[in-house]
Amino acid sequence: MSKTAILPRKDLFHLPDGLIYLDGNSLGPLPRSASERVAKTVSSEWGDHLITGWNVDGWMEQPSRIGNRIAKLVGASDATVVLGDTLSIKVYQALSSALSMKPDRKVILSDTGNFPTDLYMAQGLVSQLSDGHELKLCEPENVLEAIDENVAVVMLTHVDYRTGRMHDMETITRAAHRAGAVMIWDLAHSAGAVPVNLEAVGCEFAVGCTYKYLNGGPGAPAFIYIRKDLADDVRPALCGWLGHDSPFAFEQSYRPAKAIERMRVGTPPVLQMAALDAALDAWDGVSMDDIRAASVELCELFINEAGRRCPQLQLASPRKSELRGSQVSFAFEEGYAVIQALVARKVIGDFRAPDLMRFGFTPLYIDREDVLKACDILEEIMRDKIWDEEKYKKKQAVT
Amino acid sequence: MSKTAILPRKDLFHLPDGLIYLDGNSLGPLPRSASERVAKTVSSEWGDHLITGWNVDGWMEQPSRIGNRIAKLVGASDATVVLGDTLSIKVYQALSSALSMKPDRKVILSDTGNFPTDLYMAQGLVSQLSDGHELKLCEPENVLEAIDENVAVVMLTHVDYRTGRMHDMETITRAAHRAGAVMIWDLAHSAGAVPVNLEAVGCEFAVGCTYKYLNGGPGAPAFIYIRKDLADDVRPALCGWLGHDSPFAFEQSYRPAKAIERMRVGTPPVLQMAALDAALDAWDGVSMDDIRAASVELCELFINEAGRRCPQLQLASPRKSELRGSQVSFAFEEGYAVIQALVARKVIGDFRAPDLMRFGFTPLYIDREDVLKACDILEEIMRDKIWDEEKYKKKQAVT
Repeated sequence: MSKTAILPRKDLFHLPDGLIYLDGNSLGPLPRSASERVAKTVSSEWGDHLITGWNVDGWMEQPSRIGNRIAKLVGASDATVVLGDTLSIKVYQALSSALSMKPDRKVILSDTGNFPTDLYMAQGLVSQLSDGHELKLCEPENVLEAIDENVAVVMLTHVDYRTGRMHDMETITRAAHRAGAVMIWDLAHSAGAVPVNLEAVGCEFAVGCTYKYLNGGPGAPAFIYIRKDLADDVRPALCGWLGHDSPFAFEQSYRPAKAIERMRVGTPPVLQMAALDAALDAWDGVSMDDIRAASVELCELFINEAGRRCPQLQLASPRKSELRGSQVSFAFEEGYAVIQALVARKVIGDFRAPDLMRFGFTPLYIDREDVLKACDILEEIMRDKIWDEEKYKKKQAVT
Repeated sequence: MSKTAILPRKDLFHLPDGLIYLDGNSLGPLPRSASERVAKTVSSEWGDHLITGWNVDGWMEQPSRIGNRIAKLVGASDATVVLGDTLSIKVYQALSSALSMKPDRKVILSDTGNFPTDLYMAQGLVSQLSDGHELKLCEPENVLEAIDENVAVVMLTHVDYRTGRMHDMETITRAAHRAGAVMIWDLAHSAGAVPVNLEAVGCEFAVGCTYKYLNGGPGAPAFIYIRKDLADDVRPALCGWLGHDSPFAFEQSYRPAKAIERMRVGTPPVLQMAALDAALDAWDGVSMDDIRAASVELCELFINEAGRRCPQLQLASPRKSELRGSQVSFAFEEGYAVIQALVARKVIGDFRAPDLMRFGFTPLYIDREDVLKACDILEEIMRDKIWDEEKYKKKQAVT
C-alpha cells in the first residue's frame, strides 16, 4: 500500500480553518469521532444507564480493552498494557515495583534529558523510602557507561521532550540487563510517533501518555506495560481496589489481580476513556512503519527548508533521522517571541526554555503542504524580524 | 427560606422516565448542564483552542478552582482543597504525608467499616516502606478505645459504605490529637450528603470522591484537603510536575508548590473536570443543613414505610438519624434477588455482599413521592415474593 493511500487521514480530525498544527507532540487535535463518542457516553450511557453503565456499557473493562489497542501500537501482546491515572502515577508504579525486584541495590539511574515529572516522582519515592536509595543522573550520551552493578533500575524517556533526541532502546536495555538492572522506558513521545517493539526490546516496564501522538484529549489517561513473564510476580505499590483480584468481594486484605490488571488503581475516568477509545480508531489499519516513513519525510523537509531559509536558527535536534523522534527543535535566542509570532499567524509550535522552538510532525493530519506553508511563514517572520515584539506590534497596527 | 422552595431541584438532572434512582450514593445522575459543558469543552476548547486551552480555557486552574467549590461544601477555606486523580491515590498521598509527620510511630489505625480501597492503599504503603509500619483494624464502635500513643495516623471513612453508619468526626479527631496522632477523614459518602465542617473538626487531612453525591460523572476526579496551617510543611509522596512550585521551568529537582497545590500530580482530566464543574452548579445557593434536613426526612420515611410494610427486612443502618449518613440499608437473605426485582421495576438501589440492600437518598432530585412509590414497589415484591427468581420469571411470562 502506498503511503499516500493511507496518509494523511486529515479528514478524521477537526482542525480549525487555516491552522497548521505542529504541536501534536504536546496535545493531539480532536478526532471528529471523539465528539460524538463522548456525547454518547455522557447522554446515553451516564444519563440513561446510570450505574448500570459499569456493566452494560463496558466501563469496567475500558482500561484493559483500550490497553490492548495501545499494546498493538507499541509491540506488546494483549493483556500486557492497562490504562489509567496519569503518566506520573504510572512512572511511580513502575519504579516502586522495579525497586522491589532489586532489594540489594539502591541506585535509580536516569538522564538529564528525562521529563522532569519522571525525575520528581523518583525523588519523591526515594525520599519516602528513606533507606539509602538515590537517583543518579547522567548526560543522555553517557547512559551506557553509567550503567553499573549498583544500578537497580534504569529509567529513561525514549524520545527527549525538548530536542527529539532518541535513545536506542535495544542497546540500552541489553546493557541494563547485563548489569542486572531493571529497565523502565517512558514512551510519552514515542507511542504513535515512532515504531516501538516492547517485546523485542525486552524491557520489564514501559509507561506512556495518550494525549500527545495518540490524540486522546486533554488529561487522557496514561498506560503501563509489564513484560508478560513478570506480571504475576510484580508487587504493586498503589494497591487500589480495582487492582484487587476480586474488587466486588470487598475483602479487607489486598490480593493483587492477575498480571497487568494489578496496575489498575481507582475508578477509571470513563469520559476520558471514551474520547481516547474513539481517537484510537484513527490508527486502525495504519502501520507504525508507514507513520515513521512519513514522519521522517516531513521532519527532513522542515529541517532542510527552515534551515536553508532561516540561517539564524540552529538545529537543536539530531540531524540524523534515526537518532530523532517525530519532532524538530530549533534553538534561537528570541525563540519565545518567534513562537508567539508564528501562533499569531496560525502556525502552532511551542517553546521550551531557555531557547527551544519545538515543532511536532504527525503524519495522520500533517502533510508536505502544511510543512511548506509553515516554512513560508517562519521565513517571513525571521526575515522581517517580526519576532521583534515592537516591530511586530507596529506591523500589526498598519496592516 | 422553606425547604420546598429550594429542594428538590429535580429539573436540573436528567432522570430517565419513570425511574426512581436511589443509587446516587454510588453514581450520581447526569446534571443537564454537564452534557452541554462537556460538549463545549470537547468541541470548542479542545477542538478549536487546542493546546492554548490550558491557558485561555483555564484548564490548568481547574483543580484549584473546582477545589474551592468543593471546599465550600465541606467547611473548608479557599486554597485548602485540590482536585485530581482517584480517591485511592488521594488516600495514599494523605497517608504517606501523615506518616512522615510522625516518624517515631508505626501504627496506622483504621476500622473494619472502611472502604476496602483505603485499607488496600495502606497495606501497599506499609509493604513498600517495609520498616515496621502496620495497619491495625478495630471494629467501628471501638475506635476511641483503640487510639493510643503508638498510633501515627487514624484513617477512617466518615460514613460506612454498607450501612450508612456515621462516625462522630469531632470526638474521634479530638481523641486522635490527644494521643498525638494525625487524623485523616475519607468523605466519599459525606461530601454533598451530610454537613461536614473540616475546619471546626480540625483534622489534618481529608479526601473524598465527587461521582457520588456531587454528581461529577463516572470516574470524576477525587479531592484532597490539608489543614491550612500545615500545608506548607507537608511532604508529598507523589511528586508530580504539576505539584512543583514552577512546573514550566522544567527544573530537574522537585520543589513542592505552595500549600495544597503540592498535592497535584499529573495532567488534570480536563473533560471530567468540566463535567464536575457543571455538576457543582446544582449546589449554588443550597445549604448543607437544608440538604441534611431533607435527607433525614426521606430516610425516615423510607425506614418507617419499608419497615412497616416489609417486616422480613431487617434494618442494617442505625435507627437514629444522627448516627446515619444519607443512605438506608436493609439486610435480607435474598437481598440480591430483591434488588434485581426492584431494578426490573425501575427502582434502582444496589446490593453489597453478603445480604445488604442499599438505598441512597439525595434530596436534590429525590422527593417524598419517589420514596413512597419505591416503598409500594418494594412492598409488592416482598409480599408476592417476586424476589423468588422462579416466581418472578413466571410472573413476567404471563404479564
